[in-house]
Amino acid sequence: MKQSQLFTKTKKESPADEVSLNAELLIKAGFINKEMSGAYSYLPLGLRVLNKIENIIREEMNAIGGQEVVLTSLQEKSTWDKTGRWSDEVVDNWFKTKLKNDTELGLAFTHEEPLTRIMKEFISSYRDLPCAVYQFQTKFRNEARAKSGIIRTREFVMKDLYSFCKDEAEHLEFYDKAKVAYKNIFSRVGIGQLTYLTFASGGVFSKYSHEFQTITSTGEDTIYVDENKGIAINKEVYNDEVISNLGLSKEILAENNAVEVGNIFTLGTRFSDAFDLTYQTESGEKKPVFMGSYGIGPARLMGTIVEVLSDDKGIIWPETVAPFKVHLLVLGDDENIRKEADLLYEDLSLKGVEVLYDDRIESSAGEKFADSDLIGIPYRLVVSKRSNSSSGYEIKKRTENNGKVLSKDELLSLLM
Amino acid sequence: MKQSQLFTKTKKESPADEVSLNAELLIKAGFINKEMSGAYSYLPLGLRVLNKIENIIREEMNAIGGQEVVLTSLQEKSTWDKTGRWSDEVVDNWFKTKLKNDTELGLAFTHEEPLTRIMKEFISSYRDLPCAVYQFQTKFRNEARAKSGIIRTREFVMKDLYSFCKDEAEHLEFYDKAKVAYKNIFSRVGIGQLTYLTFASGGVFSKYSHEFQTITSTGEDTIYVDENKGIAINKEVYNDEVISNLGLSKEILAENNAVEVGNIFTLGTRFSDAFDLTYQTESGEKKPVFMGSYGIGPARLMGTIVEVLSDDKGIIWPETVAPFKVHLLVLGDDENIRKEADLLYEDLSLKGVEVLYDDRIESSAGEKFADSDLIGIPYRLVVSKRSNSSSGYEIKKRTENNGKVLSKDELLSLLM
Repeated sequence: MKQSQLFTKTKKESPADEVSLNAELLIKAGFINKEMSGAYSYLPLGLRVLNKIENIIREEMNAIGGQEVVLTSLQEKSTWDKTGRWSDEVVDNWFKTKLKNDTELGLAFTHEEPLTRIMKEFISSYRDLPCAVYQFQTKFRNEARAKSGIIRTREFVMKDLYSFCKDEAEHLEFYDKAKVAYKNIFSRVGIGQLTYLTFASGGVFSKYSHEFQTITSTGEDTIYVDENKGIAINKEVYNDEVISNLGLSKEILAENNAVEVGNIFTLGTRFSDAFDLTYQTESGEKKPVFMGSYGIGPARLMGTIVEVLSDDKGIIWPETVAPFKVHLLVLGDDENIRKEADLLYEDLSLKGVEVLYDDRIESSAGEKFADSDLIGIPYRLVVSKRSNSSSGYEIKKRTENNGKVLSKDELLSLLM
Repeated sequence: MKQSQLFTKTKKESPADEVSLNAELLIKAGFINKEMSGAYSYLPLGLRVLNKIENIIREEMNAIGGQEVVLTSLQEKSTWDKTGRWSDEVVDNWFKTKLKNDTELGLAFTHEEPLTRIMKEFISSYRDLPCAVYQFQTKFRNEARAKSGIIRTREFVMKDLYSFCKDEAEHLEFYDKAKVAYKNIFSRVGIGQLTYLTFASGGVFSKYSHEFQTITSTGEDTIYVDENKGIAINKEVYNDEVISNLGLSKEILAENNAVEVGNIFTLGTRFSDAFDLTYQTESGEKKPVFMGSYGIGPARLMGTIVEVLSDDKGIIWPETVAPFKVHLLVLGDDENIRKEADLLYEDLSLKGVEVLYDDRIESSAGEKFADSDLIGIPYRLVVSKRSNSSSGYEIKKRTENNGKVLSKDELLSLLM
């Protein structure tokens, strides 16, 4: 895409009303716009990143057999009365609204209830199990205080998957597959090294739930990490008994701030009991379906990536989620140089390389370099009088301080 | 995908609480689930259709230079006060809700106001114009009475594009390109022949707005069609003056029921005036930006396709939006026949043909044929004792009554 046509522009000043690094950088670089506290719009660059993150998650959910759906935000009281979760005293972050005839409706903050209701239509026999259903869908949560930029908001897309199994054994088999899929996701989006499977408080049906926590100084959570074993304990369950249960040793565990980037729960039969979601076993017995839930927020992931992968000049996107792979800069207004940059842009685009082409005439070289560092595309490619087809092209990785000069062939073999 | 693994199933009975054909067929065939009046969830088959429709729209919007974003549903009063559209007396289909501190919020029913506010950050010079910004985003509309299945709902994804131009002339140039893009969309999703550019009531800034109306006996609107010229007049502006203005003749115009599948509006400077969205001309003059808006509801399009393309056995999807291209049915439980069908499924899938494979063991041939007609995939391919690799495969189009027997090579050249 040509930057002269991209409608967003970078800002010189940081937004006055943001304290979080991720929102500050993403707004300055033109990825997002703050609509109000806790609600952000995604502009072209931001939406490209979000879509790439979502596609990685989608591939991993499909790989474990997930089937994609989209449920509604609008919710009726009767569905949620079955589990007692309609009451604002039980769930304190509902947004409620009303139909014209004064019927109260809720905006879903999660979807166990409506999906369990749907599955009653389709699950009746052991032949229908196991199955896993997921969606990318906008959740609304009436947070008392929205904070941390796009990491904790009042409106956000969540990938929520729900599993339906015959019994706990079948559930645990799926649950382990989901753990692996989650690890794949964090590693593919570039924060695998910093992300730990973390034991957190469980519920009625399991001793622990599992969170995935990414270490960052600005994280809201505190975790205790065993780096060798690659696991951690959330402060909320950090005590001698848990440490010993997990076969860990207090001396090794290191305290860190972290942000929760995913969580997986064993739900057991809590929701299937409430909705009478049962199946007939091979021997004709009636049994409740055993459920699990698995959440990940793509925008929270995006915010966390920015928190942990940036420097004082701007964002440093991993290639897998970057809005473009290459930022092509043409410097100066020499006609021949510009023509050469145009050709290089067309050539790379035709070969399927995603290029943002800074073809702006009114911007100085200094502005273009600064914008490029702020936006954080992995490769910066410069065409100028100094650097062109006869001398070779100057390419620099965002993660490195020095570039190198490559011939066109070398360039293509690097980028394709 | 193997049908034995698809979690949805077809239903024998029509839903008791649906009067519209589209909802009745889509629920019976397992494409959607009704959450409440005016709110439907999209199950795997339905989501596949919706995504295909959205991708066709996306391609056409990108082709006219549209840049994709996603704005928020949650809206603050102050933004909408600028145009006077916050009041429930002015706009009668708001859903409103509240923050914990009692601040009133709205759920966006459209996005002129928030997008104009955003564009103020980025548009300041003639160099920034023209530009076009669009999104696929969930709208909430508090309809007094939801009806017509997924054609008129309270929660639905809308593609809304907004154009920003220097003046009316530049706007009209873009507006004409948008008209062509819209025609392409309706033709690509299979209802081009039945869809007419329709003159409807305008606003402050233009004599007419333009609707795209698809003829169907169940449509809520009445239009008067000149079939030769390929245009129509909405009943709301149907009078002698308009007929003569458009150079049409009353004798030729045929009255039809129709459903509005898209609309495009000249907004002029109504919103840019309210938000002081201006730009500096080349000569240094300050001028208001000239705007237009262009809407299409992918689900409404999906519902309309079902209304106009179905028969007494079920849905007849056009290939471009069908959930799968081929419905492969294996009949009987003969091991060799099943193996042969398995191989054919793998072979077609590897070659990139989208196949739904009815590999269910417990279903009879009659049930499989009935399900296939109901679901409406364009090609039905049968592997049975009568029809296999030695004799050839039996393939039938959903639109035709009789199939033919093809060798594997003929089959592949037909489907790839």
